[in-house]
Amino acid sequence: MFKLHPRLAEDTFRVGDFPLCHLLLMNDASYPWFILVPRRTGVREIFELEQRDQQQLLKESSQLSQLLNKLFHADKLNIAALGNMVPQLHIHHIVRYQTDQAWPNPVWGIFPAQPYTERTQQEIFAGLIDHLVDFTPDISCSLPPRIC
Amino acid sequence: MFKLHPRLAEDTFRVGDFPLCHLLLMNDASYPWFILVPRRTGVREIFELEQRDQQQLLKESSQLSQLLNKLFHADKLNIAALGNMVPQLHIHHIVRYQTDQAWPNPVWGIFPAQPYTERTQQEIFAGLIDHLVDFTPDISCSLPPRIC
Repeated sequence: MFKLHPRLAEDTFRVGDFPLCHLLLMNDASYPWFILVPRRTGVREIFELEQRDQQQLLKESSQLSQLLNKLFHADKLNIAALGNMVPQLHIHHIVRYQTDQAWPNPVWGIFPAQPYTERTQQEIFAGLIDHLVDFTPDISCSLPPRIC
Repeated sequence: MFKLHPRLAEDTFRVGDFPLCHLLLMNDASYPWFILVPRRTGVREIFELEQRDQQQLLKESSQLSQLLNKLFHADKLNIAALGNMVPQLHIHHIVRYQTDQAWPNPVWGIFPAQPYTERTQQEIFAGLIDHLVDFTPDISCSLPPRIC
């Protein structure tokens, strides 16, 4: 049975589920930074997914990317499957701005994470969830107001 | 008409063409580092490609990833579409080892590139090309022996 890697669980908020992937929000207010995690066990690389799952991942990733690009007025998206530290397959979707602290470098390992306030995190959830198709918001969220 | 970004042309060797993408080898012997560049003009993000092209990119990326993983006995692959410095859509496929100089960090911007010797670059081309399907090796390569 699929279980989210503890490091991912610790560093993120769970937004909800696409048909294949968990959608997570990295707890770092420095960048709008989301992560897709296919709910499949023992998979480290995209090519290890079954063909059908690869197609579904592409679909979910493109839907998410298009929405992030529009909602957050991105200068650029950074999409990446690295996994050097957390071997469970996960795909970063990071909104980048020419004015962000790491630009033009990649974001990993440069600056410490800036945790979200509850309010900002909830606002991001609310803004996003309304626009996602084939998506089930997480029901475990109990923060008031309950918008996620 | 599609034209490869001058920065990509300068930093890489052209291995050849899949139906959609150029396949490039980054001129950095520190890691087996390949780049796919869809031959489409004005595209910066994967989601901006037409659906059919997105499918084809996934196919070419997965074929390449599977082959790199096997041929180079990778500990991990790093697959990424960043493009903060070079806006033309290009997708990195980097073979990582737990013993490489940047592990476990991403490779970008940490160490200066170590250019290939002609011999090593040719050996890499030769080892790869034989195993690629739906692939046309570059005909502009004139290095002796002509294996690419």
